[in-house]
Amino acid sequence: MKKRIKLRKFEFDLTPLSAMLAFVPLCILLEMSHADPVWIFITAGLAIIPLAGLMGTATEHLAEHLGAGIGGLLNATFGNAAELIIGFIALQAGLIDVVKASITGSIIGNILLVLGASILAGGLKYETQYFNRTAASLGVTLLALSTISLIIPALFHMVISGHPAAHERELSLEISIVLFICYILSLIFSLRTHKHLYVGDETDDSDEAIGTETWTQKKALIVLIAATVVVAIMSEFLVGAVEHTARVLGMTEVFIGVILVAIVGNAAEHSTAVLMAMKNHMDLAMNIGIGSSIQIALFVAPVLVFAGYVIGQPMDLVFTTFEVVAIALATWILVLIASDGESNWMEGAQLLAVYVILALAFYFLP
Amino acid sequence: MKKRIKLRKFEFDLTPLSAMLAFVPLCILLEMSHADPVWIFITAGLAIIPLAGLMGTATEHLAEHLGAGIGGLLNATFGNAAELIIGFIALQAGLIDVVKASITGSIIGNILLVLGASILAGGLKYETQYFNRTAASLGVTLLALSTISLIIPALFHMVISGHPAAHERELSLEISIVLFICYILSLIFSLRTHKHLYVGDETDDSDEAIGTETWTQKKALIVLIAATVVVAIMSEFLVGAVEHTARVLGMTEVFIGVILVAIVGNAAEHSTAVLMAMKNHMDLAMNIGIGSSIQIALFVAPVLVFAGYVIGQPMDLVFTTFEVVAIALATWILVLIASDGESNWMEGAQLLAVYVILALAFYFLP
Amino acid sequence: MKKRIKLRKFEFDLTPLSAMLAFVPLCILLEMSHADPVWIFITAGLAIIPLAGLMGTATEHLAEHLGAGIGGLLNATFGNAAELIIGFIALQAGLIDVVKASITGSIIGNILLVLGASILAGGLKYETQYFNRTAASLGVTLLALSTISLIIPALFHMVISGHPAAHERELSLEISIVLFICYILSLIFSLRTHKHLYVGDETDDSDEAIGTETWTQKKALIVLIAATVVVAIMSEFLVGAVEHTARVLGMTEVFIGVILVAIVGNAAEHSTAVLMAMKNHMDLAMNIGIGSSIQIALFVAPVLVFAGYVIGQPMDLVFTTFEVVAIALATWILVLIASDGESNWMEGAQLLAVYVILALAFYFLP
Repeated sequence: MKKRIKLRKFEFDLTPLSAMLAFVPLCILLEMSHADPVWIFITAGLAIIPLAGLMGTATEHLAEHLGAGIGGLLNATFGNAAELIIGFIALQAGLIDVVKASITGSIIGNILLVLGASILAGGLKYETQYFNRTAASLGVTLLALSTISLIIPALFHMVISGHPAAHERELSLEISIVLFICYILSLIFSLRTHKHLYVGDETDDSDEAIGTETWTQKKALIVLIAATVVVAIMSEFLVGAVEHTARVLGMTEVFIGVILVAIVGNAAEHSTAVLMAMKNHMDLAMNIGIGSSIQIALFVAPVLVFAGYVIGQPMDLVFTTFEVVAIALATWILVLIASDGESNWMEGAQLLAVYVILALAFYFLP
Repeated sequence: MKKRIKLRKFEFDLTPLSAMLAFVPLCILLEMSHADPVWIFITAGLAIIPLAGLMGTATEHLAEHLGAGIGGLLNATFGNAAELIIGFIALQAGLIDVVKASITGSIIGNILLVLGASILAGGLKYETQYFNRTAASLGVTLLALSTISLIIPALFHMVISGHPAAHERELSLEISIVLFICYILSLIFSLRTHKHLYVGDETDDSDEAIGTETWTQKKALIVLIAATVVVAIMSEFLVGAVEHTARVLGMTEVFIGVILVAIVGNAAEHSTAVLMAMKNHMDLAMNIGIGSSIQIALFVAPVLVFAGYVIGQPMDLVFTTFEVVAIALATWILVLIASDGESNWMEGAQLLAVYVILALAFYFLP
Repeated sequence: MKKRIKLRKFEFDLTPLSAMLAFVPLCILLEMSHADPVWIFITAGLAIIPLAGLMGTATEHLAEHLGAGIGGLLNATFGNAAELIIGFIALQAGLIDVVKASITGSIIGNILLVLGASILAGGLKYETQYFNRTAASLGVTLLALSTISLIIPALFHMVISGHPAAHERELSLEISIVLFICYILSLIFSLRTHKHLYVGDETDDSDEAIGTETWTQKKALIVLIAATVVVAIMSEFLVGAVEHTARVLGMTEVFIGVILVAIVGNAAEHSTAVLMAMKNHMDLAMNIGIGSSIQIALFVAPVLVFAGYVIGQPMDLVFTTFEVVAIALATWILVLIASDGESNWMEGAQLLAVYVILALAFYFLP
């Protein structure tokens, strides 16, 4: 009997979420009837949540058929496909600030909101929870590397202000290449040379039989393609409605990108991570939160820089000071919480507190 | 026989300090005879040292009668009552910069001076000293949270410079609420859900019988009220003499707040922490230093922001860049020293070195 | 039989390096024939590499004759003598920016390049490598202290911009004194009170018999003096050719200082550290990388500030923002990697990635 590989972390029961798929036709209807863009924005956002979850599940099932190596690679690459698609469509529309804001929001959302809620929820059931220190440690170091790769271009931008910015994009492009190489190396590390660190406790999981049914390769592929296409359409509507929605709700586009778009793109991971933490699978919960942040920072961000270069949009790694500081502070607090391999509810509460403080600042930022 | 609760950490032999109470009448005499404000400042400062100690001892005794829950709460709230009173009186006098400087000074003073001296003194007697990693770890994470809550408003202030500052106070107020909630949560954590982490080694302490006599509830209450009233009067004199003293001594008000006022308010904790470290009660010493900093950052600072809101003084969380950086660096170096649960004399020396470097910079700052 | 002390970490087989001594006469020849300064720069740089190694070896041999105490002191003081000489000659020539750049480059080069390459090379042979957490922890805390001592003057410089800079040099000088005292204290810690932490695994080393021959005291002294004199001459040529070389190669003097000069001065440590890591002597490799950085920051930098004061050159601790941030980020990532006492190849790759990102930024910096 074929053994289930452990990477199937995003699998979850679709029934509660599948009801939300009803927002897909509703959103299309609203778009076709030229309804108020605010409603289009809301329904598109709500529609993306189950679709992103569906993409994750389909990817997991497909990965299972492809074996640990290629399957793991697929998971790592398509795990944040929804964010990549939203980012790409916003990039095409020239909304560079929204692209950067949603990258920022995904990183801090995964670290602070997803992990914060998971650790808090898990901590309310278990006094102390444990996870693999070495794996968590590699994760936070990669996040620190990502932070550094955003601090340097931002500082460079500040220092050279006044000079012609000729070399600025070149620097961003070359740093993106370094990040991309680090991403590939981290896959080699986690899928090959040190994969035992990421295995977790096999028995527990099979006991609880999360997702008993295995999709056929064909079904998984069809679902993945279909969900990707629909996500792309919904993202088109979402991005098209951002400007108007921001104006009507009296929010900045950056706030919408950092908080709202990021929540939409990560809602599936969010619910899975909280569920895992409540089942005391802290390793999986940490993996989802930290792993997603790393994927955004080391894979999605560089790919969007490369894409911007190709399609001629001025996308680079020069984020605003506030975004860079937010990511740096989120990484810092995560380092403090993750480095001992233990967690308790208060640590989750603190991560959420930092999220609230940052969200307040982004809200008031003009 | 009633068992002594362990929170009685501030108890110390009053005889050497009680002599310093002589500065109380001396200060009143000088004030009444309109003496040089520099002398009023000095005598008021010296008078506050034993009074703050007396308040701590009375609170400890009172807490003992009230049981671990309410008693712990009382300790946590009144542990830094002297700083709160000084801060409130300076706030009323409109000396916002002095209030912020003394908050900064209390935080870095507790981290660098109190803990530095304790670790150094303890380390000269014992090659390696040990303390509870988890409790220290929660402490430094709370300090990191406090640091973040000062970085964000300062950065916000920088970024919006030029725009109307309408939302700036709102941001400070809301962050203060988040901090205050975190403070309450940290009390629930340390007094209820995870109190075993803070118990320390009972036997050692009762053996050495620090403070054998137990005050009656009535005596404790009377001493507490009397000391509070006198501290308030001395603080009034101290604050009233700050401006003149700064001018005469050629120091800035900020330096006086950061270094002198902070030392006065923390002298009692200081001597207790050093004593505890020399008796190899490293857990208690760390608790005093880190705990006091957290109380200042998560309780005193927000309460002063609320008070400023009520009495109409423009108190917010926008500290100067130098103050924010000083607190961030102090927290950073503490993280490095506290995260392994061990200390040696060199670590104490390094904390003191950072204190000297910061004090020098505050001294030369125009 | 006299036992070899363990500090002899820099000892290495001179045969491959000694061939490079041929660059010494070549460089002198080029200088005398007034050749293109670029060639003088290159040959002087290549000549310094084996000379710096020779100085290290001679110091080790001399230290052996002097016993652990004085010998350790000698090692600690002359371990980075080449950097000190280059720095002093550049200081005399008034190239303050090059001095600071080469200090920056030595610190980040040792942390990121030397340790990164060592950890990567060692990690390719051994899945996980271990080193003494406590010693590494003291090292990174001292590096954090050094970082703080550069952040404060830089921030001070920013804050007082506009005011007369009267107290700025005074601040740098006093911080330098604090750093120098900390350096002496760290020697007392590592050579006296806690020397057992630095002993390593004796047996391994004597088994492999690195450097079997012991030089006589006389031979060691003569080689040390001769190498020092020649290094001084080569440094004179190197520094004299910096400006022209920078212009011709289209690089800034800062880039040359941070990257090229720093590599030249640390090449010997570099090869030794990599070799040690590949032999699984991770303690020694960490010691070399972290120890050298500390020597530069706590000994070479303050001594150059003192020297600048004496010879009337305006040398202080006010480094550029980019330099300070580079050192802070290098220290931060090292903290994350060194704090668990374990290393793997991916951690080495990440240190190198940060080095590449910083080097790119320094390259493009106008």
